[in-house]
Amino acid sequence: MAFENVALLGTGLMGFPMARNLARAGVPVTVWNRTQAKAEPLADEGAAVAASTSAAVTGADVIITMMSDGPTVLAVIAEVSRSLTSGALWIDMSSTKPVEARAARARLAEQGVAFLDAPVSGGTKGAEAASLAIMVGGEAADFERAHPIFEVMGRPVHVGPAGTGQLSKLCNQAIVAVTIGAVAEAMLLAEQGRADPAALRAALKGGFADSTILQQHGERMTTGNFEPGGLSKFQLKDLDNVLVEAAGLGLALPMVEGVRARFAHFVENMDGADKDHSGLYLELKAQNGMGT
Amino acid sequence: MAFENVALLGTGLMGFPMARNLARAGVPVTVWNRTQAKAEPLADEGAAVAASTSAAVTGADVIITMMSDGPTVLAVIAEVSRSLTSGALWIDMSSTKPVEARAARARLAEQGVAFLDAPVSGGTKGAEAASLAIMVGGEAADFERAHPIFEVMGRPVHVGPAGTGQLSKLCNQAIVAVTIGAVAEAMLLAEQGRADPAALRAALKGGFADSTILQQHGERMTTGNFEPGGLSKFQLKDLDNVLVEAAGLGLALPMVEGVRARFAHFVENMDGADKDHSGLYLELKAQNGMGT
Repeated sequence: MAFENVALLGTGLMGFPMARNLARAGVPVTVWNRTQAKAEPLADEGAAVAASTSAAVTGADVIITMMSDGPTVLAVIAEVSRSLTSGALWIDMSSTKPVEARAARARLAEQGVAFLDAPVSGGTKGAEAASLAIMVGGEAADFERAHPIFEVMGRPVHVGPAGTGQLSKLCNQAIVAVTIGAVAEAMLLAEQGRADPAALRAALKGGFADSTILQQHGERMTTGNFEPGGLSKFQLKDLDNVLVEAAGLGLALPMVEGVRARFAHFVENMDGADKDHSGLYLELKAQNGMGT
Repeated sequence: MAFENVALLGTGLMGFPMARNLARAGVPVTVWNRTQAKAEPLADEGAAVAASTSAAVTGADVIITMMSDGPTVLAVIAEVSRSLTSGALWIDMSSTKPVEARAARARLAEQGVAFLDAPVSGGTKGAEAASLAIMVGGEAADFERAHPIFEVMGRPVHVGPAGTGQLSKLCNQAIVAVTIGAVAEAMLLAEQGRADPAALRAALKGGFADSTILQQHGERMTTGNFEPGGLSKFQLKDLDNVLVEAAGLGLALPMVEGVRARFAHFVENMDGADKDHSGLYLELKAQNGMGT
């Protein structure tokens, strides 16, 4: 198969292994990173390294962004808009607000450039192993066009129109946060009732209460390992984004609201910002007058 | 291996296939059921059918109960106490309150009879397939003694002292209820934001947000299938038991408290008692002014 020319902007912890997988699969890829030194090892994999965003996108059929947040993506779009080719496809794989995805789409449509929001789940391990869950919002035809490229990086699913890729990522984060809260309560109840938490996790394995959160974060809680992993300050930011989107849709989500307030307390008053999000267990213990 | 003589009291939806698995494995088993006709087909499997609880337990090394609740188990213990042999082992596989398990243990200790609380998870399918998760509280020596019998019915795990089997089952139910609440919020957000819920579930499969609850109960929610399954009135009873136990340990469990209040509203005011517990989605929609 002949791949389209790809420009990948942002070769950080996630973008670097994604770009490497593209290059190794034979995709013609030009990479750019703000700190260029981080992109340069990709030259050994067959990627071209560009010195500017405009140089990177010039002549590209497909532009992939993997940035820290939505405002950064929108700034890059503004920066390179004169260098874009009409008929190109922009795929933002960063995690942003759905409203930012829709703004990016509208801005690019003015240039005749199509847009997909395609955030991922699976972390650096998933990026390296090309096993990322890729949640894609946008037109079906654009999804089909991007499919061969997505498959080099992971497992793409088209979830709906523009913005719904980001919405799906927020749904993911909402479920993760509330499930951490559920597991925290079960672990504390088990410990205080003198059940062995490791035996409990083994007993529940494979049943209706089982999840990766129970097995991995449950173990973190009862062994006191809150080294990140997933930072609590990012979990809080994600929950804020969930609630902004819910409010925009006129929705009350009581469990997300409850757990968001508790993560805020953990981050702001309990020195939890840089602890793993399973550290919500410490907040639950503090609510119960137990020292950490 | 030579099995001990077993009496199994209560051959209902769960007890019947459990007794059948015991008989087929060559365990010498005598069964009893309040409605005797329900026990009689087990004679074809090699079980003896007793006409009374006292007749069933007479001469039994191991007595297994699979009753509807703790008071029923305690009543049966009182009924047969004169027929028990000192040195016997009573295994209650019903779901009861931990405090009821400890009461049963104390009552039986007076007769020189050991006790394990060993509730199960996995439903009738798990009972038939001998794949039940069996959560066992009690003395380690008694667990070892019961192990060959447990293995005929499923996968036993010793979780701690008397009562912790029941406590583990409550932890299971607490996680299930709160996770249903989390999935309900994610599904409603996805639907209102025009993401395809089935595609979303497919996208999240295998990731940190994934669970049997997401895949099975999430589908029930967005397809409107609230046929039980797990009844909401039993979920409410389980959550009440979680909170009774938590209060006894001096613990506040905010998420369980929140979801318990919502299940109570669903059961008492929304005709939800006999709907599947995924029906919490309807309660969330009602909170958001959406008809069901």
